[in-house]
Amino acid sequence: MTRIRIALSQIDPTVGDLDGNAELVLGRTRRAAERGATLVAFPEMALTGYPVEDLALRSSFVEASRLAMEHLAGRLAAEGLGEIAVVVGYLDRCEASTPRLGRPAGAPQNAVAVLHRGRIAARSAKHHLPNYGVFDEYRYFVPGDRLLVARIGGVDIAIAVCEDLWQEGGPVAAARAARVGLLLSINASPYEVSKDDSRLDLVRRRAREADCTLAYVNAFGGQDELVFDGDSLIVDAEGRVLSRAARFHEELLVADLDLPQRTVDARLARTDDTVADDLTIRHVVLTEESAPPPGPAAEHTIAPALSDDAEIYGALVTGLRDYVAKNGFKSVLLGLSGGIDSALVAAIAADAVGGGNVYGVSMPSSYSSEHSRDDAADTAERIGLDYRQVPIAPMVDAYLAALGLTGLAEENLQARVRGTTLMGLSNQEGHLVLATGNKSELACGYSTLYGDAVGGFAPIKDVPKTAVWRLARWRNAEAERRGEVAPIPVNSITKPPSAELRPGQVDTDSLPPYDLLDAILDDYVERDMGRDAIVAAGFEPALVDRILALVDTAEYKRRQYPPGTKISLKAFGRDRRLPITNHWRESG
Amino acid sequence: MTRIRIALSQIDPTVGDLDGNAELVLGRTRRAAERGATLVAFPEMALTGYPVEDLALRSSFVEASRLAMEHLAGRLAAEGLGEIAVVVGYLDRCEASTPRLGRPAGAPQNAVAVLHRGRIAARSAKHHLPNYGVFDEYRYFVPGDRLLVARIGGVDIAIAVCEDLWQEGGPVAAARAARVGLLLSINASPYEVSKDDSRLDLVRRRAREADCTLAYVNAFGGQDELVFDGDSLIVDAEGRVLSRAARFHEELLVADLDLPQRTVDARLARTDDTVADDLTIRHVVLTEESAPPPGPAAEHTIAPALSDDAEIYGALVTGLRDYVAKNGFKSVLLGLSGGIDSALVAAIAADAVGGGNVYGVSMPSSYSSEHSRDDAADTAERIGLDYRQVPIAPMVDAYLAALGLTGLAEENLQARVRGTTLMGLSNQEGHLVLATGNKSELACGYSTLYGDAVGGFAPIKDVPKTAVWRLARWRNAEAERRGEVAPIPVNSITKPPSAELRPGQVDTDSLPPYDLLDAILDDYVERDMGRDAIVAAGFEPALVDRILALVDTAEYKRRQYPPGTKISLKAFGRDRRLPITNHWRESG
Repeated sequence: MTRIRIALSQIDPTVGDLDGNAELVLGRTRRAAERGATLVAFPEMALTGYPVEDLALRSSFVEASRLAMEHLAGRLAAEGLGEIAVVVGYLDRCEASTPRLGRPAGAPQNAVAVLHRGRIAARSAKHHLPNYGVFDEYRYFVPGDRLLVARIGGVDIAIAVCEDLWQEGGPVAAARAARVGLLLSINASPYEVSKDDSRLDLVRRRAREADCTLAYVNAFGGQDELVFDGDSLIVDAEGRVLSRAARFHEELLVADLDLPQRTVDARLARTDDTVADDLTIRHVVLTEESAPPPGPAAEHTIAPALSDDAEIYGALVTGLRDYVAKNGFKSVLLGLSGGIDSALVAAIAADAVGGGNVYGVSMPSSYSSEHSRDDAADTAERIGLDYRQVPIAPMVDAYLAALGLTGLAEENLQARVRGTTLMGLSNQEGHLVLATGNKSELACGYSTLYGDAVGGFAPIKDVPKTAVWRLARWRNAEAERRGEVAPIPVNSITKPPSAELRPGQVDTDSLPPYDLLDAILDDYVERDMGRDAIVAAGFEPALVDRILALVDTAEYKRRQYPPGTKISLKAFGRDRRLPITNHWRESG
Repeated sequence: MTRIRIALSQIDPTVGDLDGNAELVLGRTRRAAERGATLVAFPEMALTGYPVEDLALRSSFVEASRLAMEHLAGRLAAEGLGEIAVVVGYLDRCEASTPRLGRPAGAPQNAVAVLHRGRIAARSAKHHLPNYGVFDEYRYFVPGDRLLVARIGGVDIAIAVCEDLWQEGGPVAAARAARVGLLLSINASPYEVSKDDSRLDLVRRRAREADCTLAYVNAFGGQDELVFDGDSLIVDAEGRVLSRAARFHEELLVADLDLPQRTVDARLARTDDTVADDLTIRHVVLTEESAPPPGPAAEHTIAPALSDDAEIYGALVTGLRDYVAKNGFKSVLLGLSGGIDSALVAAIAADAVGGGNVYGVSMPSSYSSEHSRDDAADTAERIGLDYRQVPIAPMVDAYLAALGLTGLAEENLQARVRGTTLMGLSNQEGHLVLATGNKSELACGYSTLYGDAVGGFAPIKDVPKTAVWRLARWRNAEAERRGEVAPIPVNSITKPPSAELRPGQVDTDSLPPYDLLDAILDDYVERDMGRDAIVAAGFEPALVDRILALVDTAEYKRRQYPPGTKISLKAFGRDRRLPITNHWRESG
C-alpha cells in the first residue's frame, strides 16, 4: 500500500472554447499541485466542452483539439506543473482508421490524455458509446479498443470514460482482470431528477466489480438543454463513499487514498493480449514511486445531499445562468403576467443572473384582470427587477382593424403582440428573452407559436405545472429559512391559472385539472406507457384519449419552442424525437 | 432458367398511418396480380412509413405494426391475393433480445415480411444500420443477423433492406456466397442532388458483386424534411439496366426476368452456418415452380433521366405537396414581396397544391418600392392565386409609439408585423403559412426570428440563392416549352435583391455578392472544408472570415426556422447538428 493524494477537478467547460478551457485546466492544476496532489483529473472532453455534436466531424476542429492538448502539456511544464499527472478528456482521432461509409468522417474519438513532464504521456478513447436518450455517439465517434492503465506514483490506474462505467462489461471487467489499484472515471454526465442516487448505486457496484477504489469526476454547468450536476465522488472497493463533491458548483475534491502498489502483472503490461470483452491493456509507466503527500492529511469531505426540489431548482438556475453567460448576454427580459409560471421564471432568473439584470414587462390587455397587474408588480418588487408596463391594446386594435380576426385567431394575436413587444425590446436593449411555458402546456400544445413561445431560452420548459407550484413554494420557504423576502407572491401560487386571452378564461376550460393531467402525462411521456396501460392504471378512458390526442398532435409547436433546461428522462427536444408528419394516434 | 414476372411498387406511405398504408399495399398488390406478377415488392417500412423516429421505442406502436402485418396477410388471402408473394417493410421486434442499457427499448427492428397464402411466410431484418447524415438507426433498431432467401417460383431470392446495399460486405457478400438467383433490395432512400447517379453506380456494382440480377424498389414522397425520389430499378448481373421507374411519382414497375432456378445449395439452406460477415442464411421455400407469365411479355421501360434543375424542382414540389396534404391542410399562405424568393415559392406552391389553393399577401411598408408592389401583383396574376394587400404601417406605428424602437429593432419589427399578419390570417382562414427564406440567408442568419421565419414549412430552405434564380429561370423556360404563362415575373429575377426594411437597402449592404457567398458556403457547409483550405482555394481571407463568422453564430436562428425540403447532402437541420452554445470560431 502507498498513500497517494489525488484531486478531482469538477469544472464547467464551454463547448468550442479550446483556449478558455485549457486556461481553466491550467489554473485548476496549479491549485491541485499547491495542495500536493500527485494526480488531478478533469471531466470527459473538458478541453472541447461536451457535447460538441457535428463539430466532431470537422477535421479542422479535431486538429485544433489535438494541437491544443499538445500546447497544454507544454505550458503545464513551462509553468512548473510538469510533475503532477493531469488526466483530461478531449477530442482526438483514430489514426488507424480508414474512411468507410457508416464510420464518422475523420474517425474522431472521445479521448483522454494523461499529461506529464511536458508531453502527452498516454492517450486512450471511450469504448462504450451511448446512442440513446440525449446521446448520439455512434454518429460522432469511433470506439476505443484498449483500456489505458497508467502507473502513477507506483499505483496502476485504469482510466475509463463516462459510459464505460454504465454499460456491462468492457473497461470495468478489463480493469478487474488487469488487477489495477484504482479505476478513474471521467464524465460529462447530464443531470436528471435523482441522478445522484442512480449514479451512487452504479459507482458502488462498479467499484465492487472492479475490486478497487473508484474515483469519479464529473463536469458541472449548462450546455444548451443539458445540465451537468457535478457530484464527483470516490468510493472504496467495498463501495463505501470516501469523498463526494457538491452539485451544481465548481469544486476541487482532494483526497488521500491508500492504494496497492504495482498490482498489474509486468508480463500482462508488456503484451497486447485481450483481457476482457475484446479490450487489450495499454500499460504506461509514468512514475514508480511518489513522495508521501505533504502537510496534514487531506480531509475527506462529503457534501450534504439535496432534496429533489433543491436539486431541480439548482439545475434550472445553473442551466439558465450558463446559457445567458456563454451566449454573451448580460441580462434577461420576460413578460410578467402575474401568473405562477412567469413568477417562478423571474425568481430563477434573479438567482441565475441577479435581480438587477432581470427586466420584466407587464403587457395587459382588456382581458387582463386587476389582480394580474398587481401580482406582476408585486413579483417585480419582491425580486427587485426592472419593471415596466406596455398595454397592448393599440397594437391589437391596429391588427384587428386591418385583418378582422375573431375567436382563437384573436386570442393568438394578443400572445403574438406580446411576443413581438418582447423581441422589439430585446433587439433595442440587448436582453435575452425568456419564454415562460411549462412542460404540461408544451405537452398539450397549449401555447401560441410566435406568441408566448417567443424567446431564446425557456427555463421551465421541462417542469410540469404541478412541479411549478411545488418549486415556487420551495423557493419561498427557502427565502423564509434564510430570512429573506419570498420572491413569489402567494396570490400567484394560489389563484386558478388562466391565459386571460378572453373574458373569464381559465386553463380548465381547455385542459383537465393539472394534477390529473400531469399524472397522465407522466405515464404517457415519461414512462412511454400505451393508451390501454394508462386506462388500466385507473384513468377515465375518454380523458386519456383526449390528452393523448393533444400530445400526439403538438409536435410542431414543441419543435419551435426555445430550448430549455432538461431535468427529466424524457424532455421534449433532445430525449423525445418524433416526426411532425405523423398519423399514429395512440388514442386509437 | 425460368421466366418470372416481378412488380416493384413505388408508393408514398404516410408515417404512422398503418391502416392507410395497408390499404395502399392491398390495392397495389391487386394491380400487380392483375398484371400477372408472381412477386410484388414494396419499400422499406412501407407499412409504418419511414422514418418513424422515436415511435420505434413505443411498444404499443411496435405491436400495432406487427398486428397490422398479420391482418394484411389475412386480408390479402381473403381478397383472392394469397398466391402472389408480397414483400413489405415494417416495424417488428427482435424476440430473442433481452433489455440492456445501450440497446433500444423493446429491441425494435427495421424488418421485412414475405406474405403468402394468408400468412407471414418469412421475416427478416435490416443488418447494416445507418447512423450518419439524416439517419439515427442505432438509436431505433437492433440489427438483423440473417440473410433471408425465399424460394419463389423456384427462384432463390435474397432480400436486403436499404443500407444493406450501401455498406461493404454483409448481405451482398452473403447473397453471392449463397448463390441466389435474384437480390431484392427494399428502400426508403432520401433524395439529394444527383442521387440517381450515385444510386445507379451502386446498384450496378452490387449486382456484379452479388453475381445476380438486382431489383431495387424505393419509396417516393415527402416526410417532413425528407423527400424520397422513387427511381426503382432492375439491373442484370453484368450491371445493365433492364427497367427503371420515374422519379417523384407513383409507379408499378413490372418486368419479366429470366432467372436461374434453385441455385441455393439444399445443404446450405438447411443449416445455420455463417456464409459471410457473420450472417447466416435463412432459406424459406414458398413455391418451387411458377406458371409462365400470362399474356404478352411485360415491356421493360426506362424512365427518361431528369436534369439537375428538373429533379430539384420535382423534389421541392413533392416535399411541399406531401407536407401540406399529410398534415391536413388544403391551402397555403405566403407573403409576396415582389422578390425572387417569394415568387419561386409561389410557383412551387401552385405546382404542389394548385394555384387556386395558394393565398398571397402583399404587406408593403413605407420602405416598399412601387416596383415591389407591382411585381407581387404580377406574380399573383401569373399564378392565378388569391391576392390581397395589407399595408403594415398602422401596426408598425402602434409599436413604435409604445416602444420607441430604432435601427435594427425597427427593421426586425416590420418583419415581425408581417409574420403576425400571416399567422393571424392562417388562424382565421386555415391555410398553412410558408416561409420563403433560402439557404444562403439561413446560413448567414440574414433573417428575422418570428418575422420572415414564421410558418409551418419552408419550401426553399435548402436552396442557395444562386440556385433560386436558376430554378426560377428553369421553371419559366418549362412554361414556355409547354406553351403556358411563365409564373415568375422577369423583373423579380433580374432586379437586385433587397429586404426593403430601410430606405434604399439592398442585400449587398450586409452580404457579399451571392455568387461569391454561395461558393464559399458550398466549401464550408457542404464540403466541411476548414478556413485555411477555403482561403487556399483562392478566396479573400477577410471575406472568408466574415462569412464563416456569420455561419458560426447563426445556429439558433437556423434551429427556429420551419422545416423545409432537404435537397443537399448538408441541409441545415437533419444533416448538420451543431450546438447553439458554441465558442468555436472557424474563422480563427
